[in-house]
Amino acid sequence: MDKDAAKQKFIGEFDSLVEELKEILVNYNMPQEAVEWFTKNLYYNTPGGKLNRGLSVIDTYCILKNVKIDDLSAEEYKKVAILGWAIELLQAYFLVADDMMDQSKTRRGQPCWYLNPGVGNIAINDSFMLEGAIYMLLKKHFRQEAYYVDLLDLFHEVTFQTELGQLLDLVTADEEHVDLSKFSLEKHSFIVIFKTAYYSFYLPVALALFMCGVTSEKDLQQAKDILIPLGEYFQIQDDYLDCFGTPEQIGKIGTDIKDNKCSWVVNQALLKANADQRKLLDENYGKKDDESEARVKKLFNELEISKLYHEYEEDVVGRLRKQIDNLDESRGLKKDVLTAFLGKVYKRSK
Amino acid sequence: MDKDAAKQKFIGEFDSLVEELKEILVNYNMPQEAVEWFTKNLYYNTPGGKLNRGLSVIDTYCILKNVKIDDLSAEEYKKVAILGWAIELLQAYFLVADDMMDQSKTRRGQPCWYLNPGVGNIAINDSFMLEGAIYMLLKKHFRQEAYYVDLLDLFHEVTFQTELGQLLDLVTADEEHVDLSKFSLEKHSFIVIFKTAYYSFYLPVALALFMCGVTSEKDLQQAKDILIPLGEYFQIQDDYLDCFGTPEQIGKIGTDIKDNKCSWVVNQALLKANADQRKLLDENYGKKDDESEARVKKLFNELEISKLYHEYEEDVVGRLRKQIDNLDESRGLKKDVLTAFLGKVYKRSK
Repeated sequence: MDKDAAKQKFIGEFDSLVEELKEILVNYNMPQEAVEWFTKNLYYNTPGGKLNRGLSVIDTYCILKNVKIDDLSAEEYKKVAILGWAIELLQAYFLVADDMMDQSKTRRGQPCWYLNPGVGNIAINDSFMLEGAIYMLLKKHFRQEAYYVDLLDLFHEVTFQTELGQLLDLVTADEEHVDLSKFSLEKHSFIVIFKTAYYSFYLPVALALFMCGVTSEKDLQQAKDILIPLGEYFQIQDDYLDCFGTPEQIGKIGTDIKDNKCSWVVNQALLKANADQRKLLDENYGKKDDESEARVKKLFNELEISKLYHEYEEDVVGRLRKQIDNLDESRGLKKDVLTAFLGKVYKRSK
Repeated sequence: MDKDAAKQKFIGEFDSLVEELKEILVNYNMPQEAVEWFTKNLYYNTPGGKLNRGLSVIDTYCILKNVKIDDLSAEEYKKVAILGWAIELLQAYFLVADDMMDQSKTRRGQPCWYLNPGVGNIAINDSFMLEGAIYMLLKKHFRQEAYYVDLLDLFHEVTFQTELGQLLDLVTADEEHVDLSKFSLEKHSFIVIFKTAYYSFYLPVALALFMCGVTSEKDLQQAKDILIPLGEYFQIQDDYLDCFGTPEQIGKIGTDIKDNKCSWVVNQALLKANADQRKLLDENYGKKDDESEARVKKLFNELEISKLYHEYEEDVVGRLRKQIDNLDESRGLKKDVLTAFLGKVYKRSK
């Protein structure tokens, strides 16, 4: 099955999950207008993205089981797809809230949910309900599994880690009070690992491992030891492309410099800058005008941040490959799972 | 132990829970500023209220075990107090968000959290972290208990129910577009049961039952069948006092009429109003000026809503007493648990 077909099949499961969630409300005798609101919330915010996180649960499951998607029975496919949609619901929960906190205007080519007429701050409760939907679905479909309680603990832990990452990001990169002395590579690493890597890289694999019955702490740790630095690399690549990628490459115009983002790029620049260069950064980073942004970009070029990035990339990919080579497959985790993830990220930068 | 001493003892446990939560962040190597922010979030939003919900977990536990608070070992007290604080954290999670959604100004005599300098919309993520703290504490202290998974399911279900109640409240009582045709007693009942009764009345008792090893579905159902209508009665009383109580009685000035609240009082008035009276309501309910409010209050008096309330109160209290009398105590639930709850609510209105 090619990538598009796999995505369509995954999307095909979403309607029935919405129906199940609506049924919970209907069984509570919830008035129709609230059922309709919740339905709209689910459809507006959950599908519509790239769905990489959800799809990677299914991909990982198939690699672990050594089968193709088409080999799965409808029942088995649905079950693993529910875990995929659970991550997508978690992502929707975060994005609805992040967009409000960042005062973003658009998401996935449409207005942010909170900007829809009549929504506004109700979006806060809507984000809560997207999270709540995860646990309603897990209970319905996984309550009888021996690993049910592990699933719940995992979602709780990863959710809390992501919130911690978001907290540090918010208190570090205040758009109104630019203060580069708050930045550091260490903080950057913490933010991206907690805000992105746990739920986007580790969570899909951990879920697939649970469903395959691979619940050894050692295998979870092996997976984490590779997927967390891989997720960090993914985000560093994202930071790099925001500044150095063409709009055609990245599908948007990068705004990290204007937005005062604690990005890998500016952190590297801060390490290399002399006093004059630091002054230029202090005076221009996080400013909303094109001239300031251009001055910052020019400095990034002088400091050869691109070269640093490529060195970092070759180094981290080399280390990850070695770690994957040394992976112990005796309990069920497979090297191919990690190789597939690395392939998706490494290819992206070419 | 008198009520004040019991409250002080309960508050005395909070510091050590904050320390445990901070330790999680410190173990993650979370930078100091984020640890401090989280600590401030916990202290600002969690204690400081009446703590009735948390305290009632302990009261219920003691009644079920037929012991006094002082009879509990430090270890046992701490464990039941953690369940109490878990409800208070759940309440804090809701209140931080509700205040943003309602654009409230003060809470418990201090500015709402989101109005504190430098907080703003970061309060959304802070509310998430208050919820996250519940599961971190439950995991640390209850992971080894046979009822751990039931605790998690219970918190998930009650959280979702509360969010559903909040959703219906928000889509029913839009402060900007007053439309009394959206109101109904049925909706009012749904809103108060879901938004308040589950987490404030059923949840404390269910938690105490679990910790006492009373996990029979029948006992949970018996408790629910009494506590949900009792919670509804509590909120109807709240609605009544907002309009008819003196500021001395209720400790604040009622604003439900000006705020276009879908209150029990206005729903009763809508049922009894003739065409002219309905016109007066349409023209004056939800208006921000004192004259409109006074006209609505005068109509409520003409319609004898007070009398209706007292009839409702005697009726519901009579029914609840009968239900309590008929309660089956054979599996561990005790009538005294429910009598204590009813006593707290019925006394309040005198």
